[in-house]
This record gives sequence, structure tokens and C-alpha cells, in this order.
Amino acid sequence: MTTNQQIEQWGIFELALDGSAAGNPFQDVQLVAHFAYKHRTVAVDGFYDGDGVYCVSFMPDVQGEWRYRTQSNLDALDGVEGSFTCMAPGAGNHGPVRVANTYHFAYADGTPYKQIGTTCYVWNLQGTELEAQTLATLAQAPFNKIRFCVFPKHYRYNENEPEHYPFPCLAQGSSAWTGSYQVDIKEGWRFDFERFVPAYFQHLEDCVAKLCELGIEADIILFHPYDRWGFATMRAEQDDRYLRYVVARLAAYRNVWWSMANEYDLMPHKSMADWDRFFRVVQESDPYQHLRSIHNCREFYDHSKPWVTHQSIQRPDPGQAVLWRSQVKKPVVVDECCYEGDIPNGWGNISAREMVHRFWQGTAAGGYVGHGETYLHPDAILWWSKGGVLHGKSAPRLAFLRELLEAGPPSGLDPIGGVVNALPCAGKMHAYYLIYTGVAQPALLEVTLPEDEEYRAEVIDTWGMSVTPGELYGGQAEIAMPGKAYHALVLRRVEQ
Amino acid sequence: MTTNQQIEQWGIFELALDGSAAGNPFQDVQLVAHFAYKHRTVAVDGFYDGDGVYCVSFMPDVQGEWRYRTQSNLDALDGVEGSFTCMAPGAGNHGPVRVANTYHFAYADGTPYKQIGTTCYVWNLQGTELEAQTLATLAQAPFNKIRFCVFPKHYRYNENEPEHYPFPCLAQGSSAWTGSYQVDIKEGWRFDFERFVPAYFQHLEDCVAKLCELGIEADIILFHPYDRWGFATMRAEQDDRYLRYVVARLAAYRNVWWSMANEYDLMPHKSMADWDRFFRVVQESDPYQHLRSIHNCREFYDHSKPWVTHQSIQRPDPGQAVLWRSQVKKPVVVDECCYEGDIPNGWGNISAREMVHRFWQGTAAGGYVGHGETYLHPDAILWWSKGGVLHGKSAPRLAFLRELLEAGPPSGLDPIGGVVNALPCAGKMHAYYLIYTGVAQPALLEVTLPEDEEYRAEVIDTWGMSVTPGELYGGQAEIAMPGKAYHALVLRRVEQ
Repeated sequence: MTTNQQIEQWGIFELALDGSAAGNPFQDVQLVAHFAYKHRTVAVDGFYDGDGVYCVSFMPDVQGEWRYRTQSNLDALDGVEGSFTCMAPGAGNHGPVRVANTYHFAYADGTPYKQIGTTCYVWNLQGTELEAQTLATLAQAPFNKIRFCVFPKHYRYNENEPEHYPFPCLAQGSSAWTGSYQVDIKEGWRFDFERFVPAYFQHLEDCVAKLCELGIEADIILFHPYDRWGFATMRAEQDDRYLRYVVARLAAYRNVWWSMANEYDLMPHKSMADWDRFFRVVQESDPYQHLRSIHNCREFYDHSKPWVTHQSIQRPDPGQAVLWRSQVKKPVVVDECCYEGDIPNGWGNISAREMVHRFWQGTAAGGYVGHGETYLHPDAILWWSKGGVLHGKSAPRLAFLRELLEAGPPSGLDPIGGVVNALPCAGKMHAYYLIYTGVAQPALLEVTLPEDEEYRAEVIDTWGMSVTPGELYGGQAEIAMPGKAYHALVLRRVEQ
Repeated sequence: MTTNQQIEQWGIFELALDGSAAGNPFQDVQLVAHFAYKHRTVAVDGFYDGDGVYCVSFMPDVQGEWRYRTQSNLDALDGVEGSFTCMAPGAGNHGPVRVANTYHFAYADGTPYKQIGTTCYVWNLQGTELEAQTLATLAQAPFNKIRFCVFPKHYRYNENEPEHYPFPCLAQGSSAWTGSYQVDIKEGWRFDFERFVPAYFQHLEDCVAKLCELGIEADIILFHPYDRWGFATMRAEQDDRYLRYVVARLAAYRNVWWSMANEYDLMPHKSMADWDRFFRVVQESDPYQHLRSIHNCREFYDHSKPWVTHQSIQRPDPGQAVLWRSQVKKPVVVDECCYEGDIPNGWGNISAREMVHRFWQGTAAGGYVGHGETYLHPDAILWWSKGGVLHGKSAPRLAFLRELLEAGPPSGLDPIGGVVNALPCAGKMHAYYLIYTGVAQPALLEVTLPEDEEYRAEVIDTWGMSVTPGELYGGQAEIAMPGKAYHALVLRRVEQ
């Protein structure tokens, strides 16, 4: 079998083959396709999609002619050959995001990626209408990454059941939130963990695809503790099989990031060796080496382990990114620094101003920050978990920050000492300096810039979203500021 | 010599005796007066006041008949006897402030003292006009304590010379601020450290007296590093003689507190043994055992040493008072948490909102906080150092906080766990709970109050200075809040 199919670079070539639905196809049938460009070959695992259909999804990363040949223990799937042409990427397709310049990110085509993330843990399990609304909101929002879970969520404001489950449901239990997670596990619930429900994962894949169309990275959370069904307490071989299935199905999407867990340290049934193994299983299975991280509640995972690509951190003080960078020498993404909202929980009720402040603190410390929103809602539709619409005031300010970052140094902002006293400063030496006042309100800043260089001052109102250009400065300089908190000063090199 | 003088309790009985100005009266003449009430005797050191006059100042603490008799190596001063009657204290005179209930303060008559301090380091060395203006400002301000120095200050915005010096000046040097302190020491300056200048200390005493009339505690800073004259580098016996002279002259004022130093750890010529000795010299010399503390820059002095009465702390995070309390079991006064202002220095440019926020953080952590103000001024008159008028916006909010504290539990606010999640709570069990939201903006608070007790909720807008009474609650309760940052919830017991 050959095709004349044309696939854009970092797009998806999909192979669907008819086989047999007999036995347990998820375990009984092995399928791999070898994709070759010249002398280079990439092995890609297939997956069973139900109804006797087996699929392989592949993301070509080089333009030109690709050939493939399948290998399987099922005759119908074995030795299928073909080819396709990989064309130039379409508009807005920059390929997958990679680590760049040690502490930063860039798309595969070299375009810088300035992470402004958000979190909607189970937006993908809320039904057609609400999911469409979430996607419409995201299309207008500043976020270029969204964190969400494969598994449904059992928590306060999260008592609804999903339309499908990832595994065949053998017996239903209670949906009520009783104030604790992993306590009610399997209280009535029973699942067949030896099989998957293709419809569940087809929908997950559809969600990832729609985010990809919007240019939004999908930071996929593989495990989490908020569980009433028993998905957090499967056996090791079940966990690993689940990971391989998700990777085989989703890795071809260029916008995929892998997050091993949300609050991994709240999962008493998993050991550190389990987390290490999960990283290795994902790394072994993923032909494209998408970004890999793990998110903590209290204790950090050791981000210096080689399979971790970047630090995903939950802490309320993103200004400490300067320290975490130096400890691990990997990018810092403070994916959770508390959420803008008004719920009783302390992690879910900071003001919009504080949320914006924390983004700027993290930015001026050489890191990246994530947003979330938790406003009380009569129908328990909180953005942080279910999506919908944004009720808060931080998002436009984060759009403003993103614009500013995208107009800054492509290589990213790194902490720079010696420029100003007692305030964070980040930038690129001899090119760009960003100083953030935070809760300070200096009317005058004393800065030390390189001698014999000229910099244009720009005063940034981080809340008012204005940029006021000022004079040129160089060497030792005193620069007038508005004397108000939450402002920044950008010093941008002017070529003489 | 006897008198019919009537002295109010905690007022001052002053004895002035003519002696001789020959030799060095500061060192050659010893004078002590023994004041007796019934069988109790208090020994009080005298001091030389210039022009052949020797004085003893005494603060009686019991109403009734007091007798005294002097003892001196100068015949004219020896064996002088007399008596006076100690009457009831006048209005507003509650006696000196003491530690009460381990972590709090009260006046000697039992009236609670809720510290709302400020700092004007050398307001007392700015000439008649500005000093009068400062006192007029203080008369209208919420502050019931002010920190200031005995010695003049050499620093940015502090280049003016005082009218007098504490010691006879032998040679004048430069007044210019060169960007560092203790570098220019004695650059041209020479003093006779074997004698004092009575006019200098008479004026200091007058300043303490005027604060006393306003009901403001004088937190007197005995040493500091900001020095161009050499006062920070005297020899040990000169230091000790200076301390005894200041104590003999000022201790009779009921509003005196002793602060061994400002930023003691920035004084390279003093060792830890020196600081320990200074505390002991002051403690030995002070008949009234006024409060004693020491203020840090970076490193805390060991506040658990027995001569320290309370912790005077410089830190930007007064919410940590809960920790410092538990470590040392003494009151916490965060005398410096950065200043409201707009100067380039990071410690001097927080917003009014942030200043008020830090007061509430410290309060809700069971501590006390101090104010200061550093707005740029064309004539370098910054409240923090020279006094004058207030330009900022925090003071009215601190007056509001003081009113609230004075309407709270007399015994003070102690941290209470288990009432609310993730927010600081302080109060008095079964009587009063104060919860502060800080940068959080919950629209709903879940609180756990004692069962079978009723509490009236009051929502406090710390910036808007409003108190909105709410419903009665008890046991497990959900309480609606405005969903805005910088609010507090007070739960006040209602007797059934």
C-alpha cells in the first residue's frame, strides 16, 4: 500500500488498519511501524482503537519522502508498506516545544516559546457544550499552554461523572465528594484495568487536536490523587500499559507535553521508584521526546534526574525561580502559584493583582508562571477544573505580559545582578534589562548599565497595561519612576 | 532639706544641687540618691548637668511619702535629705510599659499597650522649627512609640550637622555623604570623649519629655553605625560611661525604652561581647527596668538572652512573628518591615497598601509592627530620619488598626490554629478570633468555632477602614466575605 498523501512537517500521518477484535486486542496484538527518511528509521508503536481497527500515528520532523512498513504478530497488520511526502509546515505550525538556552523554550523551528500557562484539570470531561465554550474562551485568551488530566477528577466542585471512563466500568459507586480523596476509592466502583475504552481516548485525542489548532500546548497530566474510581491505585503493569497506550495515541501531536502527575507527593500508593519508572516508560515510548515534568504539592521531585526536561513547580513564591534555576540548571515553570479566585481554600483565592504580580515575579527571576481561576460558581463550573469562561481580571494583564516577552530577547530573560539594588532584574546582558518593582514604589531607580552603551527606558504599568517610553541612559543612571507599586522598567539597547 | 513637693505617680522628682565645676565633673564626682518608701530603698545615680550643677531624677512608682538622702564624694552634694509626696497619676499617665502575658505589653497600671510604632531616627537633631512640626504631626498620628537615636546620623539624606554634639568638638571634618558609613570616620573630626556636652543631652531630655506629654513611648537607640564623627568607634570605657550618663539622665521618664542599637550587626568595631555588656550596663544602671531590645540588619541577636525584654526585628515579612514568638517566648516587635516611600533603596519604597498589609500580617501572627516613611523630598526631609509631616497614606489605616486592637482582647492576640485553613488567625480562645486574608480574596470562609458558643462576625476592610457587622456563628460555619484582598474577619463572642 502506497499513498500520495502529503503531510505537513510536524503534522500527523495516520495509518488505520483493519484487524481482529478477538481476545483482548490491547494486550494480545503488538503493532509497530518503522518510518524511514533516507537512512534514518523511527519506530512508532500502534494502538488498538476498537471495532477491530488498529492505528499508528506519526509526526514527521523532516520534509521529504518518508516510507514505512509495519510489523505485527497479527498477519493482517504485518508488513503493510507505504510512503508519504512531508511538506512545509502550515501557518502557525512551529513544531513541538523544546528546551532552549538551558532555562528557556523554543519551538522546533527556532521560534521562541514564552510560556503563559493555565490550568483546567478536567475541562476535557465536561460534555460537548462546556468543552466548546472552554475552547472558545481559550481562543481569545493569552494562554499558550493548558494543564489537564487524562483521568477524571474527584474533588470539591468535581462530583460530576464523565460520559465515558478510561476502562470498562464493571460496577458503579458513589459520586459524592466527602471531603477527602483516595479515601472512597473503589467504594462501589469496579473497572476492568486490562482493557481501555477507545471512545474515552478518542475524545482525549480530539481535545489535544483542538488545542493544537489553537496553537496551545497540551500539558497532559498522566496521574493524580483526586480519585474515587481506583485509577490512582492500579498495579504497576497496569500503570505502565496505560502510559504506553496514551503515548502511542497522543505523542504524534506536536503540542503534547507529559506531566507524570499533579501533586505526585499526595499519592500514597506510588513510591519514588514508581515515579522514576513512569518517566522512563514515557521516555522510552515517545519517538519525539516531548517535554517531561512532574508537579508537586509539598516536596519537590528531584528535577535534576536526567529524564526530567524542566521543573514544574507548585509554590506561591515564583520569585524563587532564580534559586531553582541555579540548583537544577533546567527551565522553571511555576505551574501553580495559587489561583485567582474567591473559594475558601487558601490556594484558590488570590486576587487578580496578586496573580499578575506573581507572573511578574517569576518572569523577573528568569522563570515562567501558570495561571488558574477559582471563582465560586452556582453550578460549580470553576475554570481551574472545568473550564467555561473566565470571570477574573488577570488574563488581559497576562496577554500584555506575553506581548512584552515576545518583544523581548528571543533567548529569554536570565537573572542579572549588579544592575539595581534590592529589586529583581532579568534580561540579556548588553541588550535588555527588565526590573520589576513588585510591592516597592520607587520614584527613582539607580541603575548600573554598561558604559558606552545606550538604553531606552520604558516604564511598564503591569496592571494598567501601558508602556511609557522614556529617555536614553547608560552607565550609572538615575531613572525617574512613577512611584507606584507593580511597575517594571525595561531598558532596551539602542544601537548607536 | 525637705520639700512639700507633690509628684504624681510615675512622674519625675528632680533634685538639682550646686557643686563644683572644677576638674572633670563627669568623671571625678560620684553622686547617688537613695529614695525610700517605707522599708524599700531605690538607689538612683545622679549626673552632672554643667555650670557646677548636679542632678538626680527619680520616678516614684508607689503613692505615698518618699524620703531621700544623697551620697557623694563631693561634700556639697553629700547627705542632702528630703521628702516628697507621691500622688495619684494624672490623666493619661499609666506608668511605664512592661511585658505582659509573655508576648504582649501593658502599662504599669494594667492598661493594655498595643504598639503601633514609627521611626524618625534623628528628628531630635533638626532644629526648633522642624522638631516642633514633627511633634505636631505626632500629636495627630496613630503612633504610640517612636524610635530615634541619641547620636546624630551620617547617611544619604542626612548630611546636616546637629546644633550641638554629645561630646566637646575639638576639630570639625566634612559633612558630605560619600555613599558609605563608618568609612569617613574621624576624617577631620575629633572629639573629647572624656566629657559630655550637657546642652546636647538637655535637648534630648526635652524631646523625651515632649513625647511623654503626647503619650508616646520613646524607643531610644543608644548606638548605630551611620557615623562620620567617631561615636561608633569609642573605647569600651567611653561606651559604658556614655550609657550610664544617658540612663542617669533619662530613665526617670516613664516613656523610655532602651534599644541598644540600630542594625547592631553593621558595626564592625563592636563584638557580641560588647553588645552583651551594653545590655548589662543598662540593666544595672536603670532603677526602673525599662524595656530593652536591639535591632538587627541581617543577623538576629540572640533574643533569648535574659537581659532582652522583647524582640526588635528588622524583616520584610512580619507574618513570621508566629515563628519568632515560639522560638524565644518574648514579644515580637517588627520595628522595621521596610518603609512606605519612593526612594531608590529597596527598604524604603513599599506602597502604603503594602505597609498596612505588613501591619496586619504581623498582627495576625501575634506580633507588633513599626511604620516609617521615606518619600523623596526637595530638602531631604524624610519622615524616617528627620520627621516633619507625613506624606503617605498608611497612617490613617494604622490609626484604624490601633482602634480595632484597643477594642479587642486586653490580653493581646495570640496565634490560634484549627479555626481556618491557610490564613493567619490570632485572638483569644473562646472570646475573639481575627482572621486576615492578605492577598487572598475568599468570598467564603470555612471556620471552626467552639460548639455551643455564639460569635458575631465583623468584616473589616483594612484599607477602606470599615467594619461591617454580620451574622452570628458557632461551630462549623461558612461565612460570606467580600471576595477582596486585604480584608479581615473578626469573630467576637456574644454572651448568651
